[in-house]
Amino acid sequence: MIEANNTQRTEIDQLGEFGLIEHLTRSVELVNPSSVVGVGDDAAVIDNNGFQTLVSVDLLVEGVHFDLSYTPLKHLGYKAITVNLSDIAAMNGIPKQIIVGLAISNRFSVEAVEEIYSGIRMACQRYNVDLVGGDTTSSTSGLFISITVIGQAKKEEICFRNGANSGDLLCVSGDLGAAYMGLLLLEREKAVFKANPNMQPDLEGYDYVLERQLKPEPRLNIVSQLKEAGIKPTSMIDISDGLASEILHLCKASKTGCQIYENKLPIDPTTINAIESFNMIPAIAVLNGGEDYELLFTISQNDFEKVQHMKGISIIGHMTEIIGQAYMITTDNQAIELTAQGWDALKKQE
Amino acid sequence: MIEANNTQRTEIDQLGEFGLIEHLTRSVELVNPSSVVGVGDDAAVIDNNGFQTLVSVDLLVEGVHFDLSYTPLKHLGYKAITVNLSDIAAMNGIPKQIIVGLAISNRFSVEAVEEIYSGIRMACQRYNVDLVGGDTTSSTSGLFISITVIGQAKKEEICFRNGANSGDLLCVSGDLGAAYMGLLLLEREKAVFKANPNMQPDLEGYDYVLERQLKPEPRLNIVSQLKEAGIKPTSMIDISDGLASEILHLCKASKTGCQIYENKLPIDPTTINAIESFNMIPAIAVLNGGEDYELLFTISQNDFEKVQHMKGISIIGHMTEIIGQAYMITTDNQAIELTAQGWDALKKQE
Repeated sequence: MIEANNTQRTEIDQLGEFGLIEHLTRSVELVNPSSVVGVGDDAAVIDNNGFQTLVSVDLLVEGVHFDLSYTPLKHLGYKAITVNLSDIAAMNGIPKQIIVGLAISNRFSVEAVEEIYSGIRMACQRYNVDLVGGDTTSSTSGLFISITVIGQAKKEEICFRNGANSGDLLCVSGDLGAAYMGLLLLEREKAVFKANPNMQPDLEGYDYVLERQLKPEPRLNIVSQLKEAGIKPTSMIDISDGLASEILHLCKASKTGCQIYENKLPIDPTTINAIESFNMIPAIAVLNGGEDYELLFTISQNDFEKVQHMKGISIIGHMTEIIGQAYMITTDNQAIELTAQGWDALKKQE
Repeated sequence: MIEANNTQRTEIDQLGEFGLIEHLTRSVELVNPSSVVGVGDDAAVIDNNGFQTLVSVDLLVEGVHFDLSYTPLKHLGYKAITVNLSDIAAMNGIPKQIIVGLAISNRFSVEAVEEIYSGIRMACQRYNVDLVGGDTTSSTSGLFISITVIGQAKKEEICFRNGANSGDLLCVSGDLGAAYMGLLLLEREKAVFKANPNMQPDLEGYDYVLERQLKPEPRLNIVSQLKEAGIKPTSMIDISDGLASEILHLCKASKTGCQIYENKLPIDPTTINAIESFNMIPAIAVLNGGEDYELLFTISQNDFEKVQHMKGISIIGHMTEIIGQAYMITTDNQAIELTAQGWDALKKQE
């Protein structure tokens, strides 16, 4: 085998997803004037005579990102699109087109692929996005989905990860932790079902967290809302890997630190119930659980008045001068350092 | 399992790759004015205030598109990029940026991924293309590569599949069939090696066909050459699935027929040697073998003089009025109808 020729073998786990990407793309230099921003943000920025195109690609891999034993194919198609639209929202842009790549094993029928596409189309219709191309091929095992999303933004409107300043307020849209609890509940019911196939799933009262896991929505309405209020975030990212991991991304890119407050974290009561049923600490679930697809952004203190009473936005802390270090002040006034324990697709494999 | 819920089950083989894509995207309507061209050509066309962006995505799947037992990882990375650049060439555009998605099993080390990336970077450097983003994740088995390529073209320069007219001349760049013979040779040596691991591979004299298989190049120089000569093809496509299949694509999209001549097909002497060693008929290998990544295009008869003596371009036939029907006139003057027996990634699975 070719890959056995390497004398050195470093396991990918040792670097993790972000470490690996950084390692591989460190020496990349951009040569085309139209390549405005490359690797390292939620989307690449490409200039077309002053008009900016945003492009992002996400892969979804069966057994890593989704489990078909509890994910309806239609939901899978829908989610594959919406999580990508979220990347464009995170740049303060508007998604316009998507291209779908599917690799499918012969376990899947045409009807199964139709189900995936019906979810894809539903998401496209809901968010006025055009499906403009694709590639469909077979795989030797499993289902792989690659989504490319293309968005638009005016040059002056684009928000990067690196624009936060010390003193800026850290805000988050919606509420956090629900998608992660939805995942834990589905995993628990799957384990129960495996142990005893006659058991009925016990998911009553958890509609909200399950929907957040199975059918996440990109917060494009927040992008519009901020625009209407005349607010441009100084930095922005979407929460796909857990709050702590995303905060550290903003800190690293912006060369700032951050301080957040446990009692400011927005968590839905249903999510609290679910968290308690697992005997977990709410803040920990929120910091480490992923897939909220809410927007995390910083604003100048001058915008405080505008944001203070804005519906669906919580101010959870502020940026500090201590480069790369982020702390959470707990309800009992302890300072806990945040570490990126978020969901890492490269560490998930068995 | 969710997918078992469907009462009807149609095997994907029954539709094939193009049938499936058509089936899934039939009802897609474009709603954004910036979506100029969607599914059905080599790339999507997106308008940015008059400036056109071309976008295409290709998936490469281990065991379907490549076999790591004889494909060096560096070549794999290089080829993954160049076959995508070929899609932009087929639109008469210039590729500018790429985004790489990789899903890798834990069989691969960091060094293995570095090898893939070194090939990716080599292709980027050679063709002045910027790597602007990516997604890296794990897979439960095998290697999946998703490449998104973004290109530019002036609106009036873009060539579609649907512009050929009856009477137009059908041209092809370079020579054909070599990549397919390279594949057959590698497969044969693999089988020999499996039967007797002490046998040394016997690939002498076949450098050219092996290089065409392992390290294909996009014909961007042909795009420039035609531009310099003041020729705009009336339709164009790249040859990824075999000449017959691509001719039928042009005929179908342009609502024409086609007639080509066996004695006009450009085949390299090394390729002929390889074809003969398999006791195959050269024209059949060329019509059905894939991965040449040459450009197949039509020109108006008015451009005949300009193209006639142009280096690296062969006129192999002309378009006719008989919609969707394509024939090859053999050296003994028989007319054989062309059928799309080209390489179909959806039929390759075991």
